[in-house]
Amino acid sequence: MTPPGPPSIDILALGNAIVDVLSHVDDAVVDGLPVNKGGMTLIGAVEAQDLYGVLGPGIECSGGSAANTVVGASMLGARTAFIGRVRDDQLGTVFTHDIRAAGVRFDTPPAADGPDTAVCMVMVTPDAHRTMCTHLGASIELGPDDVDEALVRESAVLYLEGYLWDPSGAREAMRRAIAVARDEGRAVALSLSDPFCVDRHRADFLDLVDNDVDLLFANEHELTSLYGTDDLDRAFNEVMPLVKVAAVTRGEHGAVIVGDGETHLVPAEPVAQVVDTTGAGDLFAAGFLAGWTQGRNLHDCGRMGAVAAAEVISHIGARPEADLRALMAERVPA
Amino acid sequence: MTPPGPPSIDILALGNAIVDVLSHVDDAVVDGLPVNKGGMTLIGAVEAQDLYGVLGPGIECSGGSAANTVVGASMLGARTAFIGRVRDDQLGTVFTHDIRAAGVRFDTPPAADGPDTAVCMVMVTPDAHRTMCTHLGASIELGPDDVDEALVRESAVLYLEGYLWDPSGAREAMRRAIAVARDEGRAVALSLSDPFCVDRHRADFLDLVDNDVDLLFANEHELTSLYGTDDLDRAFNEVMPLVKVAAVTRGEHGAVIVGDGETHLVPAEPVAQVVDTTGAGDLFAAGFLAGWTQGRNLHDCGRMGAVAAAEVISHIGARPEADLRALMAERVPA
Repeated sequence: MTPPGPPSIDILALGNAIVDVLSHVDDAVVDGLPVNKGGMTLIGAVEAQDLYGVLGPGIECSGGSAANTVVGASMLGARTAFIGRVRDDQLGTVFTHDIRAAGVRFDTPPAADGPDTAVCMVMVTPDAHRTMCTHLGASIELGPDDVDEALVRESAVLYLEGYLWDPSGAREAMRRAIAVARDEGRAVALSLSDPFCVDRHRADFLDLVDNDVDLLFANEHELTSLYGTDDLDRAFNEVMPLVKVAAVTRGEHGAVIVGDGETHLVPAEPVAQVVDTTGAGDLFAAGFLAGWTQGRNLHDCGRMGAVAAAEVISHIGARPEADLRALMAERVPA
Repeated sequence: MTPPGPPSIDILALGNAIVDVLSHVDDAVVDGLPVNKGGMTLIGAVEAQDLYGVLGPGIECSGGSAANTVVGASMLGARTAFIGRVRDDQLGTVFTHDIRAAGVRFDTPPAADGPDTAVCMVMVTPDAHRTMCTHLGASIELGPDDVDEALVRESAVLYLEGYLWDPSGAREAMRRAIAVARDEGRAVALSLSDPFCVDRHRADFLDLVDNDVDLLFANEHELTSLYGTDDLDRAFNEVMPLVKVAAVTRGEHGAVIVGDGETHLVPAEPVAQVVDTTGAGDLFAAGFLAGWTQGRNLHDCGRMGAVAAAEVISHIGARPEADLRALMAERVPA
């Protein structure tokens, strides 16, 4: 086998292509729904319509977990690409416009029929926490044939969102992309996405972590869910020997990065006011991976993740609004 | 003629049904476009697509000038309704959801074919001023048959947005609504919308103000444009004898309200940070009309307008986010 050439893309993400509908709700609205507060629940088209009917006025922003990550990384100078499926409808046009406007290469053709572009109803409660209900819509149309193998081979890091394990076609797309990336000797990164998503796919995720994943992103609840334990320390000791790097976020308690035989405790970046926690994990991964592909040390990668996450929770929506690059130059100088 | 019964609606608005696409841009982007900075320019479908292509990532919010006004008035306890046209597409669904969720009655059937729901690209420059390019899309499908005459008769105030004078069908709808409102002895209110809109329709607007308008809303630039003068004082003296009330906003210099033989100088409400001036005039009218239909005196009506306008310029988007009613109870107690 010939060794791979230098990658032309730093981070290629596979993820659900989703437009977020954000609305402020009282706790009573979330408490009255059959959903996990703070988590993400999958809903069908009918439930989506019913739920939309009870929500207040909303704001629409492009979203999708892995898409948020590559947008953030792109803003930090990383060369990025995205694979995911929208429908050829208005929200699909919005998603496509926004991700390309952020400098991310996005060429997956939109579906010409079938369900509408995926939407995620993000309910922000007065405590700034978000509870999400996602109708996967067109994103379940993504299949293995959409994986541009040449693009995977050209990319230093293949970044996968755990949520994409829900639609079966997308799962097959991820398996194909993983096989190609491993064949080319590229790094495979996985975000566990959500404790309930981990619950739905525990065996598969354990197998992935054991055999395919080089960089694992998770929050503490997702990591403990993976090992079916309440004991974060035990979960840590289970995962450490299996991956090259594990980056575990702990909200206001900061993050723990393990890798290269070292453990780094990274404090959370102070935020004047937490407005909406949507996208915190996605932007942590963005900052971390931008640093990692630029050859920064693990502590700095963690700091870059913390700064990017702090930016996105200080306003409504899961995509950065500030000049992330300037922010990073000031907060985590090289 | 039998005298009209008590109105069941306080404010019925006719306006363009528009979804705003907000994006932050540098001054250079606006300077490079053939548009008036700070104004609204009408563009076609092709120009809309071209412009969207050069804009950065955006946020979508329901908008439309008169629609913003009835949403704000509804949040202040007024009974409101709206007539305007969307297409039966995703952005039309968004517009319909948001205005109804704000408590506004909205029954105009969506167009089943023809152009998409209208969009307004709102470019916010670092000085927080907004420059708008509107593709009227489906809103030009509004016609006189969409005017529910019974609804006009039931409404204390018919509120008309000057922008609606651009599409000919909508203009006819406005003429019919005015005729019905006058026949029933209801008040007719007009917002001049934009100095360039006034320029396009000066003769018609002068005729309307002379013969049909009871309450006139304008900013100083729109009022001087109406009389083709640079002299605000002269424009004031022209308009005063023609209307029952004129409310003229002057940005950070506050507002001047004339009516009942009195002139009221209302200071602007202080704002911690002006983030986006989109909707300032719309919300001034919302606060004013909510007060007016509740029987408040003209000074209080002006104060209510100033407080509502201050809320909407303190964040992104032209619809209020705060609890306007609580804000008003504190700032302009009855």
